Amino acid sequence: MNKQKTFAVVGGDLRQVHVANRLSGEGYQVYGMLLETNMALDESVRCTNDISGILPKCDVVILPMPVTTDDVNINAPFTSYKVRVEDCIKHLNKKSSVFGGKINQRTKDLAEKTGIELVDYLEREELAVLNGVITAEGALAIAMEELPISIFQSRCVVVGHGRIAKVLARYLKAMGAQVTVAARKYSDLAWISAENCKAVHIRQLSAVVREADVLFNTVPAHILNREVLSHLKTDALVIDLASKPGGVDLDDASELGVKTIWALSLPGKVAPITAGEIVLSTIFNCLDEKGEL
Amino acid sequence: MNKQKTFAVVGGDLRQVHVANRLSGEGYQVYGMLLETNMALDESVRCTNDISGILPKCDVVILPMPVTTDDVNINAPFTSYKVRVEDCIKHLNKKSSVFGGKINQRTKDLAEKTGIELVDYLEREELAVLNGVITAEGALAIAMEELPISIFQSRCVVVGHGRIAKVLARYLKAMGAQVTVAARKYSDLAWISAENCKAVHIRQLSAVVREADVLFNTVPAHILNREVLSHLKTDALVIDLASKPGGVDLDDASELGVKTIWALSLPGKVAPITAGEIVLSTIFNCLDEKGEL
Amino acid sequence: MNKQKTFAVVGGDLRQVHVANRLSGEGYQVYGMLLETNMALDESVRCTNDISGILPKCDVVILPMPVTTDDVNINAPFTSYKVRVEDCIKHLNKKSSVFGGKINQRTKDLAEKTGIELVDYLEREELAVLNGVITAEGALAIAMEELPISIFQSRCVVVGHGRIAKVLARYLKAMGAQVTVAARKYSDLAWISAENCKAVHIRQLSAVVREADVLFNTVPAHILNREVLSHLKTDALVIDLASKPGGVDLDDASELGVKTIWALSLPGKVAPITAGEIVLSTIFNCLDEKGEL
Amino acid sequence: MNKQKTFAVVGGDLRQVHVANRLSGEGYQVYGMLLETNMALDESVRCTNDISGILPKCDVVILPMPVTTDDVNINAPFTSYKVRVEDCIKHLNKKSSVFGGKINQRTKDLAEKTGIELVDYLEREELAVLNGVITAEGALAIAMEELPISIFQSRCVVVGHGRIAKVLARYLKAMGAQVTVAARKYSDLAWISAENCKAVHIRQLSAVVREADVLFNTVPAHILNREVLSHLKTDALVIDLASKPGGVDLDDASELGVKTIWALSLPGKVAPITAGEIVLSTIFNCLDEKGEL
Repeated sequence: MNKQKTFAVVGGDLRQVHVANRLSGEGYQVYGMLLETNMALDESVRCTNDISGILPKCDVVILPMPVTTDDVNINAPFTSYKVRVEDCIKHLNKKSSVFGGKINQRTKDLAEKTGIELVDYLEREELAVLNGVITAEGALAIAMEELPISIFQSRCVVVGHGRIAKVLARYLKAMGAQVTVAARKYSDLAWISAENCKAVHIRQLSAVVREADVLFNTVPAHILNREVLSHLKTDALVIDLASKPGGVDLDDASELGVKTIWALSLPGKVAPITAGEIVLSTIFNCLDEKGEL
Repeated sequence: MNKQKTFAVVGGDLRQVHVANRLSGEGYQVYGMLLETNMALDESVRCTNDISGILPKCDVVILPMPVTTDDVNINAPFTSYKVRVEDCIKHLNKKSSVFGGKINQRTKDLAEKTGIELVDYLEREELAVLNGVITAEGALAIAMEELPISIFQSRCVVVGHGRIAKVLARYLKAMGAQVTVAARKYSDLAWISAENCKAVHIRQLSAVVREADVLFNTVPAHILNREVLSHLKTDALVIDLASKPGGVDLDDASELGVKTIWALSLPGKVAPITAGEIVLSTIFNCLDEKGEL
Repeated sequence: MNKQKTFAVVGGDLRQVHVANRLSGEGYQVYGMLLETNMALDESVRCTNDISGILPKCDVVILPMPVTTDDVNINAPFTSYKVRVEDCIKHLNKKSSVFGGKINQRTKDLAEKTGIELVDYLEREELAVLNGVITAEGALAIAMEELPISIFQSRCVVVGHGRIAKVLARYLKAMGAQVTVAARKYSDLAWISAENCKAVHIRQLSAVVREADVLFNTVPAHILNREVLSHLKTDALVIDLASKPGGVDLDDASELGVKTIWALSLPGKVAPITAGEIVLSTIFNCLDEKGEL
Repeated sequence: MNKQKTFAVVGGDLRQVHVANRLSGEGYQVYGMLLETNMALDESVRCTNDISGILPKCDVVILPMPVTTDDVNINAPFTSYKVRVEDCIKHLNKKSSVFGGKINQRTKDLAEKTGIELVDYLEREELAVLNGVITAEGALAIAMEELPISIFQSRCVVVGHGRIAKVLARYLKAMGAQVTVAARKYSDLAWISAENCKAVHIRQLSAVVREADVLFNTVPAHILNREVLSHLKTDALVIDLASKPGGVDLDDASELGVKTIWALSLPGKVAPITAGEIVLSTIFNCLDEKGEL
């Protein structure tokens, strides 16, 4: 890429700090905005909160993930300074490439009205795949932390066969667990067999969970209903990786005495630097596709 | 399934023989038609070529893969008896469940005209997945047979990231090869990384093939053109697994002195019994979906 | 085994509790001694501290690991009752099979003098192998907990090629790390290659650690000396799994600002139930070899 | 290494040709002796049969594997010229480093009498390990070639847990087979579990072979006796990888109608170039240990 390009990295958590540091390390001119209290920010990143002065001259603007947590201000835990989303948007240059993660509808509408093309990198498949890898690691770490048994020779059930489930099942298998994966489609069941796991149709879930030491859910629907949960051993652990509404009714779980951990947004928590790296490479892919590398 | 059901297994190769034997072993009444010269057919399978008498009374009819090789007669290498496709079709019962593999348009048209619902199991994703596994094995066997080096520490390039490619790359990796996989989509490249192989964009293919000991193609398009082939080492081997038109222009390969093996239809060749088993389980899936199990 | 056999499980931690529970679940008569404050002990285990009355009538006596932590009393964290090692030894029956873990010299001497055959299950190779698996898991969990990057695509160096190292390197590799293993013997280097890791001679350690994100040591000797440590990146993590004296001089590490975690006795900490299971199966192997099963 | 060193590569098969080519490619002066009819020998290798003139001036002499096949002449299939082992030995220089593979007693005695230090690289552990990898590949290739079923989901039994067995079991497992490994020592059984295979004691072999599709033997003793063989399915395949006397009494197998393939010396057959590479790297290890690199 033309190393003359200027980047603004605005708000966000350690992932954004890593994005800023890496761009700076690659030789770009980088402004770190709303990040001033983070100690890990490289000195070569120019730290400023001058939204109106700096944003318009940046070729690429990278907003945080999520862009906002309160629907009003830019998500910026590393500053006490508040910037409203609309004030940020209005200073963007129409020629800039602007990125953000998990962009809410209001922000999208604002951007569209202002003529800003705003790309949500969370909707990119390659980011989802690699975040799935980190999520699988995080799920494994939780299981290792919580269980008094080893993964080796444990009996694991994974519900679903999407990105996270595929990687998680592979890791569990590599570590010597007996892995059963429950899915609905025959083609998924074929893939599960091809990946050397035991494949069961999701309608047989109640039967297969009886022996499970740990149950990982990846499907965002209440598949782990009372009936399924009631078949679990008393010392079984449920790790729910599904986004809202999750796969477990937590009230049911609580009533039945099923220990459940609902683990959301693992990438930024368990491996913020790698998660930042994934964001960055996804943004580079987007720039490449636009012919701007 | 209701073990009163009657099956006809008509024509085909060892896969069909296995299908007939397995159904019979499961306790079904099975007619093996146009298979009389095969020694492996179980005695419990009723061997007959009485198409007009038997076919109408069968609940399930399993035609071979492919249904015909000459566009005229049922594909039936294990008999000298000839049965025209239309003569077979006209004796089918409209209430029967009829299956076949790689059904040509003319046969489809005949079936439609006669009001027969004819299901092509080759179009089922679960069959394609498991056939992909066997194809990957077959490709590995060819490489081991042909190369004077081990797979261990060999440098392999796999072109494409579909069903065969995914499994093949995994097997090569497990056996200690250095595996590079070339694909076009960023999401495929992310998956390739997630599967611990080196991911390269297909436009960089010429660069990565220079060091390759063996190049496996899975993409049915002439991606391995003169330019790519010209970068191969003189002792490199190309194994083309893509269906027509294949990935290599064989004239180019021949002129450039590139040793190329175009390996088609591996499942029925390298593991006919497993391939038959896959056909059978796919047919059972279809019957299940129709509520006939 | 003759289910008439009577077991005493004496002192120790959750591993011993699990041993007692499992034996009881298998139908044996089991006395749990010095374990009375542990809530997880099954009701079917007879809880008693009557050493002089019960021990002499038990066919198999299982002492804890380690047998003593203070060289005086039986290691028994789940009781406030104190029993001196010699008082325990003197009530043992010469016909009993007696087991313990990490038996100190004084206890060995006492047993010999009394004519008791005391087997240290920690010296059994099969226990060491399976404890190695759990230790590898524990090491992985520490790395995942401590690092802000994923194991996936991290650069790991493993020092040594014993039981823990082999399993750990395999797990890291399965999770997509770049794994270098340093060893001294050419045969170990050959095995490391055969396991698809990068093999380097231990004299090249200083060179290979430069890029490492995490360094796992398994060799109980100060191989990670000042010189080696001085080549680490500032954010590298050292996880030392070696028993005393460990592989790192902690003063050196501290002076050089190298973050080091010395993780000892992981099996009982990270997976006490599995660790107990391993103890139990090792004891059964010993009884089998003595013809007592 | 001092590139002034002069090598003689004497007799042998494609492995030796590869050794000569590689040394020459590395810049050494290399004499290829008794290899003149092989087309693959590089032009840069000096082809000569002048034993008496050339051998004395060479720093390193590499005899073939095996050194002799008839106990009289150097094993040299790529020449019609005959050289007696003793005529070769007598022209060796006492200062040279001399290597050979599978050196028979008579040759060893001759060398000793003449004061020549003769190293058998076949006795080096690192060579045995890497040859084990290639043997495992070769065994897999035989199974794929011979069986009408896929390795995927086949039931494999591996007898023994040495170098070949470990790698073979891993490869079979990676390709989706159900793998049972039979061994005698509890520590081996623990390792087999740790490698995620089913471990059984060798005394249970008769029971576990009943379901086997393929049985790989690696133990050079008649463990697969009549009793064991009699429990095999009629279509099971035995692949015996053990050196003499092998693990199967072939007369028993023949009488019982058990299809058996005794596959010996696979490395030189299935991957001569890699096998040569392994020989070469082992020789370099030896030279390194002697301080001659």
